[in-house]
Amino acid sequence: MANDTLEGNRHRGIPRQGASPHTLIDAIQGTLADFLAAQILSLDTIDPALGRFARTARDLVHAGGKRLRPVFAYWGWRGSAGPDAPVEPVLPAFAALELMHTFALIHDDVMDESDTRRGRPTAHRIFAGQHESDGSIGDPARFGSAAAVLIGDLCLVWADQLLARAEAPPSVRACYDRMRVEAIAGQYLDVLGESQPGAWSVDRALLVARHKTASYTIQRPLQLGLALTGVTQPETEQAYGSYGLAVGEAFQLRDDLLGVYGDPAVTGKPAGDDLRTGKPTALLMLARKLATPGQRAELPLDPAGAVNPADGSGGLTDAQVERRAQIITETGAPARLEGMIQERVADGIAALAQAPIHEEARAALIELAVRVTHRPA
Amino acid sequence: MANDTLEGNRHRGIPRQGASPHTLIDAIQGTLADFLAAQILSLDTIDPALGRFARTARDLVHAGGKRLRPVFAYWGWRGSAGPDAPVEPVLPAFAALELMHTFALIHDDVMDESDTRRGRPTAHRIFAGQHESDGSIGDPARFGSAAAVLIGDLCLVWADQLLARAEAPPSVRACYDRMRVEAIAGQYLDVLGESQPGAWSVDRALLVARHKTASYTIQRPLQLGLALTGVTQPETEQAYGSYGLAVGEAFQLRDDLLGVYGDPAVTGKPAGDDLRTGKPTALLMLARKLATPGQRAELPLDPAGAVNPADGSGGLTDAQVERRAQIITETGAPARLEGMIQERVADGIAALAQAPIHEEARAALIELAVRVTHRPA
Repeated sequence: MANDTLEGNRHRGIPRQGASPHTLIDAIQGTLADFLAAQILSLDTIDPALGRFARTARDLVHAGGKRLRPVFAYWGWRGSAGPDAPVEPVLPAFAALELMHTFALIHDDVMDESDTRRGRPTAHRIFAGQHESDGSIGDPARFGSAAAVLIGDLCLVWADQLLARAEAPPSVRACYDRMRVEAIAGQYLDVLGESQPGAWSVDRALLVARHKTASYTIQRPLQLGLALTGVTQPETEQAYGSYGLAVGEAFQLRDDLLGVYGDPAVTGKPAGDDLRTGKPTALLMLARKLATPGQRAELPLDPAGAVNPADGSGGLTDAQVERRAQIITETGAPARLEGMIQERVADGIAALAQAPIHEEARAALIELAVRVTHRPA
Repeated sequence: MANDTLEGNRHRGIPRQGASPHTLIDAIQGTLADFLAAQILSLDTIDPALGRFARTARDLVHAGGKRLRPVFAYWGWRGSAGPDAPVEPVLPAFAALELMHTFALIHDDVMDESDTRRGRPTAHRIFAGQHESDGSIGDPARFGSAAAVLIGDLCLVWADQLLARAEAPPSVRACYDRMRVEAIAGQYLDVLGESQPGAWSVDRALLVARHKTASYTIQRPLQLGLALTGVTQPETEQAYGSYGLAVGEAFQLRDDLLGVYGDPAVTGKPAGDDLRTGKPTALLMLARKLATPGQRAELPLDPAGAVNPADGSGGLTDAQVERRAQIITETGAPARLEGMIQERVADGIAALAQAPIHEEARAALIELAVRVTHRPA
């Protein structure tokens, strides 16, 4: 199977085993590259500055990531469409999910004022850099944010355009729209949580995880893949829904752990990032719940309040971040979170057991459930 | 005709004369109100904070404006569909254009750091105010921007959802996507112009006007209306294209004049707003072109550069703004711009002369061409 190419074989080259995902990812990349090249050309013709703008977006899309959303949508589709259905007609829909994800990351990074993503400068930092190297007037940071908001908007519109190229019944767009609303709502709750941590709880953190992460990373992509087949399959939709929410929550809980204990060299983000921003994650809320009064006093909810918003100074020192991580460990919260992750992965896999889907998709989704919730970054 | 109601008569109550637009606007408002009420309910169920978030968006949509984009789309549609076609099946598409416009205004105001819009606080100011009255932690302005970016994103997605409720052939979405890309590209050039005014010219300002304003205010709404009929009419599409670009440019040139000479009580924006932000409008670029060396020295291109980005201090005084407006008048640029407006309005009207559209639509579009380019705000 490793030698399959997109054009090559009876199955149109997309590997049928989860174990060999590279050809699928190559096909997604190819779809994205072709689409973006055409958009860049068309914008370049209007004004070269627009071509440069669009090329910046292209580079962000190509910079990477795990393409999880297209992969889940692919298996959601394959599970119902079966091993012999040609993938070309639906590839643009999978690729659209990646552009939608790029939109979400760019806007999130503007909101969080993050400097790096995947170990590279974030969109607004790139544009601020262009502003400086162009010798432009005005504030580079302000230009950077404005341009990043716009390039995010453009990625969202591009995602729509790409989705429209897939052979898709109307139910696909309905699923896609639900996913987009949930992702935006989840992100709003995330932003709100950082400014109202006192009103937060483990339950509310899990609500954010369901909307911000589970819905748009796993649940809706799977269901969108199913909708692409044009067949109504309530049992499969239900199974994908349960699997998606369970594994998606576990995915976010892993993210919480990585946000405190992750290796910056692997995550591409600063160590203890969530502690620095004061994000009321399920991990932090659980740690505070399990903490002794003495421990809780060392885990205040508003470290962000200590940061001077004008220059970002005054935040936690590295030693303080390390101390808080250690206290969180001592509360037993990380071990509990590991348990919650296992439980959810098991629930997700169980939800698939009776679903009327093709075996290779079931096998791939079982493997993915484990892999995405036990990742280093 | 003034007594027509939406349900009332054979023509489904939408007035057939441009002279009586209120019933159409009421129908658009009703469509928006029903749609938004359903979205608010659904988000409220997830979390009351999301209901409040969505109600803020609803209030911004209802706060007003001229509903120009739905009105142009309506006449574009009516021109081809004829006086007896029922409007209900396509109303959601007209209303979608207003939600798309709300998205654009909210994001533009974040980028421009504008405090008021239509005489009321802008979205990010409203959210910053909520942050303060809630006693939240962190920087209210930062929370306000983040929430406004998200509510803009949500309006863009909502617009899509509303568009999907219209009975529309695929060409409608293609036209809509073109419009969205052009609007975002135009806004990027606008932002870029402010930071690179030295690289700007009258021609480039007109390029911005075409993309940022003409395309998404007039040209594409008209063509989208035509596409809603499902009939291919190259002559009408061409006529709408020429009319839309000509009248849309004139609309932007009027905006340039209002941005310098408009009455703040009517425009809802500060006096001389464009001069304060240093926007390289066609008006300013033309004034610099026509200016004597002495006048040009008093019309520098980077007043924004004198503003302290941290607190907004150090901008032009009211007296300086008034002085610059006076010099611009003395160069003769405003009179030239008036001429350019008349020329474009005449071209736009001429483009309709031979178009195979219904007479009432032609009459309405002729009246609109004059009205939108001779408005006080």
